[in-house]
Amino acid sequence: MTQLQAAREGKITPEMERVAAREGRTPEFIREGMATGRIVIPANKNHRGLDPQGIGTGLRTKVNANIGTSSHFPDAVQELVKLRAALEAGTDAVMDLSTGGDLDGLRRQTISESPVPVGTVPIYQAAVEALRRRGSIVAMDADDIFQVIERHAADGVDFITVHCGVTREGVERLRRQGRVTDIVSRGGSFLLGWMLHNGAENPLYTQFDRLLEICLEYDVTLSLGDGLRPGSLADATDRAQVQELIVLGELVDRARERGVQVMVEGPGHVPLDQVAANVQLQKSLCRGAPFYVLGPLVTDIAPGYDHIVSAIGGAVAAMAGADFLCYVTPTEHLGLPTAEDVREGVVAARIAGHAADIVKGVPGVRDWDLAMSQARRALDWDRQLTLAIDPVKARRLREERNPAGMRECTMCGEYCAMRLVAEFFGTEKITC
Amino acid sequence: MTQLQAAREGKITPEMERVAAREGRTPEFIREGMATGRIVIPANKNHRGLDPQGIGTGLRTKVNANIGTSSHFPDAVQELVKLRAALEAGTDAVMDLSTGGDLDGLRRQTISESPVPVGTVPIYQAAVEALRRRGSIVAMDADDIFQVIERHAADGVDFITVHCGVTREGVERLRRQGRVTDIVSRGGSFLLGWMLHNGAENPLYTQFDRLLEICLEYDVTLSLGDGLRPGSLADATDRAQVQELIVLGELVDRARERGVQVMVEGPGHVPLDQVAANVQLQKSLCRGAPFYVLGPLVTDIAPGYDHIVSAIGGAVAAMAGADFLCYVTPTEHLGLPTAEDVREGVVAARIAGHAADIVKGVPGVRDWDLAMSQARRALDWDRQLTLAIDPVKARRLREERNPAGMRECTMCGEYCAMRLVAEFFGTEKITC
Repeated sequence: MTQLQAAREGKITPEMERVAAREGRTPEFIREGMATGRIVIPANKNHRGLDPQGIGTGLRTKVNANIGTSSHFPDAVQELVKLRAALEAGTDAVMDLSTGGDLDGLRRQTISESPVPVGTVPIYQAAVEALRRRGSIVAMDADDIFQVIERHAADGVDFITVHCGVTREGVERLRRQGRVTDIVSRGGSFLLGWMLHNGAENPLYTQFDRLLEICLEYDVTLSLGDGLRPGSLADATDRAQVQELIVLGELVDRARERGVQVMVEGPGHVPLDQVAANVQLQKSLCRGAPFYVLGPLVTDIAPGYDHIVSAIGGAVAAMAGADFLCYVTPTEHLGLPTAEDVREGVVAARIAGHAADIVKGVPGVRDWDLAMSQARRALDWDRQLTLAIDPVKARRLREERNPAGMRECTMCGEYCAMRLVAEFFGTEKITC
Repeated sequence: MTQLQAAREGKITPEMERVAAREGRTPEFIREGMATGRIVIPANKNHRGLDPQGIGTGLRTKVNANIGTSSHFPDAVQELVKLRAALEAGTDAVMDLSTGGDLDGLRRQTISESPVPVGTVPIYQAAVEALRRRGSIVAMDADDIFQVIERHAADGVDFITVHCGVTREGVERLRRQGRVTDIVSRGGSFLLGWMLHNGAENPLYTQFDRLLEICLEYDVTLSLGDGLRPGSLADATDRAQVQELIVLGELVDRARERGVQVMVEGPGHVPLDQVAANVQLQKSLCRGAPFYVLGPLVTDIAPGYDHIVSAIGGAVAAMAGADFLCYVTPTEHLGLPTAEDVREGVVAARIAGHAADIVKGVPGVRDWDLAMSQARRALDWDRQLTLAIDPVKARRLREERNPAGMRECTMCGEYCAMRLVAEFFGTEKITC
């Protein structure tokens, strides 16, 4: 039985109890959210050592870190280092997007070392294997794709991105309309090529029921990918993107009917004033399914700083209701990230999610900010550094820039407003 | 004659023409915005070598970098390095906030080396000198303050932050209400201490006309400081803050009547869902005066990453109408920034401003994003790196993470969607 099926039958699973405890919600709140499809708990029956995490309405905004090799950097040890960096920085989930080296081994390593939910994009492996074995990505057949999906599911992958909504109809609309950056999703581009080469419809769409059966067996959560997402501001919220989203909404209905947990992926590159509209559109077309956004990036011009660009978009998206933020690292659009980039990316995305959670009414979230502010007011440095979202970096900067034992900091020194005001007010303290 | 007086008499000054050319606006657009007080051009008659910059409605959102010594880091050479880092990173203005070393020399160095407008907070120097000469900050008298202001104006400072709105009424309201972090503005804390110690009203408020006469003589733009701004999310948009803003609105009227250019400063620490309201409130209470925000910081818990926190708040504020973003560096709340921190802070604030300008309808702004996206689509790396907001960092990352001459990047390698889709579509290119 999947978590969704259990929820519908009124059963509270240990996973729901764990998520409830983490979120400061009642188990019944979680169960009810799951029964209506607004919350998912990606928890493959074969992922041993998983500490379950909930994603969806009323819960803390979650963060995903993409790791994985590429053909130029196929080293498994380096991926383990990145996984640990992501976990230390506080990621809520990881995706193994490897396309270089021993793909099965890399995935199994990630699952066995990761207490957080693990996601994959199985079409990547199908494409890599088709290129290796048949000489061309487009030479893969539907069975190749589904066999890889089955392998990922059996290994314990908790959620999979599948670009089921890239259909001939959507691609035709994209063609008619024209775009600056066409398709920037790797999965989307593989399927586009496959459809054009084979003159056939996307097998992940035509054989969606086959996909559901695999997910049902292992309780894999579907993450319906947005293969036609905009890759530039100029292409945002266009007809191709929205056409695909309509199809994804239909597939959400079918997944839920079958008892399969499902969330939906979203853009991408989106101007700041369209971010909230994109969230509202997804929530409406997909009947409240958890929304997993990639960024959004609110400008195209900042390679080297796309973690900041996506923190802006992610915060606004999460405030509008997005549930799950895929991080973006400083090396996005430039190359494969290092462990340090992974760390920076996770923290930036967590900041975005937290800034939104403060105003989303997530239980207990404001207490953290209040505790930090009280520590600041008291010039209690140990507590400030302990409370920092990245205590390691905060402590390093504090130590590098200040003499040991300094009461204030070197920004203001003896002109510290906190210290002066406390002195001026004297015993007439006006604060809590 | 000040720029404001000229604008009101229908005159178009060389400064207005220069700003018009930079902004892609007509000189008449600039003049009219200035005449109504919605645009300022901080341009002290004595700032030789200034390349004038406009701030206000309809113009590109501007960025300020705070530099300056502290008692622990009084070195003038290091400040020159920071000034150059800020200019190289593309700041539109700098403020010299020095409180350590030779304050007059530091300010003159900054003015003579800076083609962008220079701001100061004269009360800092008044406080430092009072402490040195009289043994206590609160021992300064009104003449001390105005003499420092006169010196700054005569030296060529283009805009000055003056906390004229910190009144006994506001402080009493703050007391009655209670706060987590009381007062976090240094200028605000000095004036609070002065008022409590001397049992008198803020001289910058009572002698506001004296201030206006100095500004009139040199055409110094007033930046009305928010001494009671919130220093934590818990204190945001409270009665003390709004009381001060009402007073600042009244002072805006008085400055304009006298022919003095004026802008207004704003918070600070503000929850994400209150950022737009803060901008609307300022625009309403201050009759459209340019709004200069410090952040806003949308969470308190991220020391080490406050440049990211403030990029989130700054983008949302600028989208709502804020005109001028004071950067925040990664070392905010921890210590005095280094030149590298200055660089990171400027770029983060520029990203925020640009993301907002895209949706504010600032002329020509979207062309940059479009050019970058076209370069991406064409895999034209030289052009991508040249167009990057920080070409130096983008090029460094590209070179570090990719073998020389690589056509795609090491993230996707041969699975690059851009490359594959171009091949799949073949000659049937669908893009512009």
